[in-house]
Amino acid sequence: MINYKRKDNYSKWYNEVVIKSKLAEFSGIKGLMIIRPYGYSLWEIIKYNLDQILKKTGHNNAYFPLLISKSILSKEKEHIDIFSDGCAVVTHNRIKKNKNEQITIDTKSKLKEELIIRPTSESIIWKTYKRWIQSYRDLPILLNQWGNAVRWEMRTRLFLRTTEFLWQEGHTAHASKKEAILEAKKILNIYTDFAKNFMAIPVIKGIKPHMDKFHGSDITYCIEALMQDGKALQIGTSHFLGQNFSKAFNVKFVNKNGKKEYVWATSWGVSTRLIGAIIMSHSDDKGLIIPPKISPIQVIIIPINKQKNILISKLSKKILQILTEKGIRTKYDDTDIHTPGWKFNEYEIKGVPIRISIGDNEIKHEKIEIFRRDTYEKVLISIDNVNNFVPKLLNDIQENIYKKALNRTKNLTLKLDNYNEFKNKIKNSGGFILSHWDGTEKTGKQIQEETEATIRCIPLLSGKNKQNGKCIYSGKKSNCRVIFSKSY
Amino acid sequence: MINYKRKDNYSKWYNEVVIKSKLAEFSGIKGLMIIRPYGYSLWEIIKYNLDQILKKTGHNNAYFPLLISKSILSKEKEHIDIFSDGCAVVTHNRIKKNKNEQITIDTKSKLKEELIIRPTSESIIWKTYKRWIQSYRDLPILLNQWGNAVRWEMRTRLFLRTTEFLWQEGHTAHASKKEAILEAKKILNIYTDFAKNFMAIPVIKGIKPHMDKFHGSDITYCIEALMQDGKALQIGTSHFLGQNFSKAFNVKFVNKNGKKEYVWATSWGVSTRLIGAIIMSHSDDKGLIIPPKISPIQVIIIPINKQKNILISKLSKKILQILTEKGIRTKYDDTDIHTPGWKFNEYEIKGVPIRISIGDNEIKHEKIEIFRRDTYEKVLISIDNVNNFVPKLLNDIQENIYKKALNRTKNLTLKLDNYNEFKNKIKNSGGFILSHWDGTEKTGKQIQEETEATIRCIPLLSGKNKQNGKCIYSGKKSNCRVIFSKSY
Repeated sequence: MINYKRKDNYSKWYNEVVIKSKLAEFSGIKGLMIIRPYGYSLWEIIKYNLDQILKKTGHNNAYFPLLISKSILSKEKEHIDIFSDGCAVVTHNRIKKNKNEQITIDTKSKLKEELIIRPTSESIIWKTYKRWIQSYRDLPILLNQWGNAVRWEMRTRLFLRTTEFLWQEGHTAHASKKEAILEAKKILNIYTDFAKNFMAIPVIKGIKPHMDKFHGSDITYCIEALMQDGKALQIGTSHFLGQNFSKAFNVKFVNKNGKKEYVWATSWGVSTRLIGAIIMSHSDDKGLIIPPKISPIQVIIIPINKQKNILISKLSKKILQILTEKGIRTKYDDTDIHTPGWKFNEYEIKGVPIRISIGDNEIKHEKIEIFRRDTYEKVLISIDNVNNFVPKLLNDIQENIYKKALNRTKNLTLKLDNYNEFKNKIKNSGGFILSHWDGTEKTGKQIQEETEATIRCIPLLSGKNKQNGKCIYSGKKSNCRVIFSKSY
Repeated sequence: MINYKRKDNYSKWYNEVVIKSKLAEFSGIKGLMIIRPYGYSLWEIIKYNLDQILKKTGHNNAYFPLLISKSILSKEKEHIDIFSDGCAVVTHNRIKKNKNEQITIDTKSKLKEELIIRPTSESIIWKTYKRWIQSYRDLPILLNQWGNAVRWEMRTRLFLRTTEFLWQEGHTAHASKKEAILEAKKILNIYTDFAKNFMAIPVIKGIKPHMDKFHGSDITYCIEALMQDGKALQIGTSHFLGQNFSKAFNVKFVNKNGKKEYVWATSWGVSTRLIGAIIMSHSDDKGLIIPPKISPIQVIIIPINKQKNILISKLSKKILQILTEKGIRTKYDDTDIHTPGWKFNEYEIKGVPIRISIGDNEIKHEKIEIFRRDTYEKVLISIDNVNNFVPKLLNDIQENIYKKALNRTKNLTLKLDNYNEFKNKIKNSGGFILSHWDGTEKTGKQIQEETEATIRCIPLLSGKNKQNGKCIYSGKKSNCRVIFSKSY
């Protein structure tokens, strides 16, 4: 049972859901998370599906070093700012036992040059591309890396903000600006479709205002999703890096006309933060709700009093087999350690989309009870019909979860032109507020100080967004609305 | 083309093959490797197949932190020794720009307690198991982790010994000694079968002599394979950890009789070193030879003069489709950048098992030429027969590669009782030498000093190995033969 309710304390509810569903926990070392088997299998499914999409669109995986030397990181002057907030610096390479068999650093092992655990890999990768790229024939390079990264976070939250996180980071090199921008946008669309089709999360695509773009990029594209508490969560970014890294690392190619040019670049990534987005988008006061397409267990079968009637086990196993053969991730929980009631609660907390319980009644009437986690509805289905009904129901649940999130997002997305109304909305219900902004960092900061809302992005609404107006704060000229929201 | 020959300079031949086949390269930061897309896709195939086997045998994946605090690492007193040789110590968590926009460490950001990048994860995992295990009902725990680890290596070689490496590390917890030993042995068998069936590498299973066991274990099981230069390579280890870690972290469980007991443990792993084993087992003076089952490209189709005859592209694509539909990893290289001759050489260096070339002759005679990389044999096959012939040939190649490695290993495995003969063999041909040993570390060290050979393992030969004799060096009593070899 989850003790906290979303409306009473969203933050404590979130933590309790993560812990009780056994997705993850903190390790005791500040900000470092342990992803438990249930959470990791969710990550594996996300990873597998996104990886397939990236491969189909021509991207290959590779692996670059965890540790980057200080001098390499210093090359791109703006990029350095990423690390000044916090990163892990390796200074020594040996430890020794003291008399009490405790470890101390071997002070003689100080490195000539400190190494930094990658917070992101642009610098080491562009140092490598320098060796790989000579001619237009070597382009494009479309690489992706699945791995870990470390950014020293002061205030950490499971999945949302952790010192170490798992992610994919794509790094591409192109012969033209146009091609690189197309790539950055293509990836943004891939992320958008993935959020919708797999995670059942509607997102808004946009561009970060100049003061919030990734250090070292020319344009940062992002997708933002609205959580149940009316706050925004950035769930993916795709950067057009211009020629910033090719200039920093002197990476030129000979073009088709025999002339040397600097290479154009993109980088993009999504992380284990996606799991935080799934939890906060869909779950309810009873626990997780996981969209079927990415749910580690899609159907849980629970026997009731199987000791009394041997047919119960038999039927359960038959249904397990039918569904498994259909390619549905099905688990039959026949352990005797816990009561059926305990199991009902456990898999509700874990957000398993469908529960099938099988007891005397099911045997007698040759019908089984099917419970769906998203709506708590139960239906009786004849056993012969299970293999058709369950896949269809999984699709229905996926759609329903998405629609719910979409409706919530629509209801909480408002155009506002009055600053008092704006303040009230942000304070009371949150949401995405579309308002005019004068384009200055100063106004952005003042609005943030007064309301805690920040500019999430300048939405890419296929031109519809281009509209003259006056900044909601300063009254100065503005030519488009931007999205304001409190955020994670 | 590979310039070095195996017989002239095995070590330089190895490096050249790794670099020219584009598997990997060094990053410029000492000992840190870049795994290029071709090498990484080989690793992905290895990982996928081993992961399936581990999941089918009840193991689940999870993820534990990259950084471990000094005090946690100090808990198991023997285990500490792993780190004294070299590891990466994180001491600060902030950097700043100086006036010249260069990075320097922010000396104010010194950590209260240093963190060490995991060289292996027993300590952090057993600290966690302390929270997870109360009763026999919580056991066994069968977890595995895919990730990176860092051990500071002084002399590094691509794949074989790198400061950062990728691996899987399994960590299990059991209610009884018997069960834990069975688990450690089960994993050793899984590794053995995997080496044989996927990597086409015959191995010898054994136990490490006490002085070489993993620090913190009671028994270290290992598999050793013989490379083409007569040196041994340890390619996997599985440790029975006894109660060492449960005692260090005070992890007890209530058994079925209501009494508290310390938990029993195993840990086991294989790493990107496996790729080094594959290269050194099978490849020849022309480049890589990769066993078909794990080859990223199983069949390469190369068109010849496709500009002249439109039917060449058409037929190539047809064959690509036929093979792809059969589930065979097939690539059609129709780029115009390189000549067919260049491509022939390129995919030979890359060790692609089968090459199909299609030109005017193939169109005319409705037969295509199939070239196998392992034996350089060519056959002409009618187009209709391709879909049956290719899968069979892939199997044949897999078997042939294994047999070759098996015969080589058999020929280089000798029982010797005369120390002069022993010294000559080690010096001239290398190989696995089965000789009696008196069981002392001193004798082991003296033999190593005089011959460079070490005791690789005490082989597990189902009892056959129990045989009384005299130590080949000291003449003292011995009750079994052990395997001596030079090694990587």
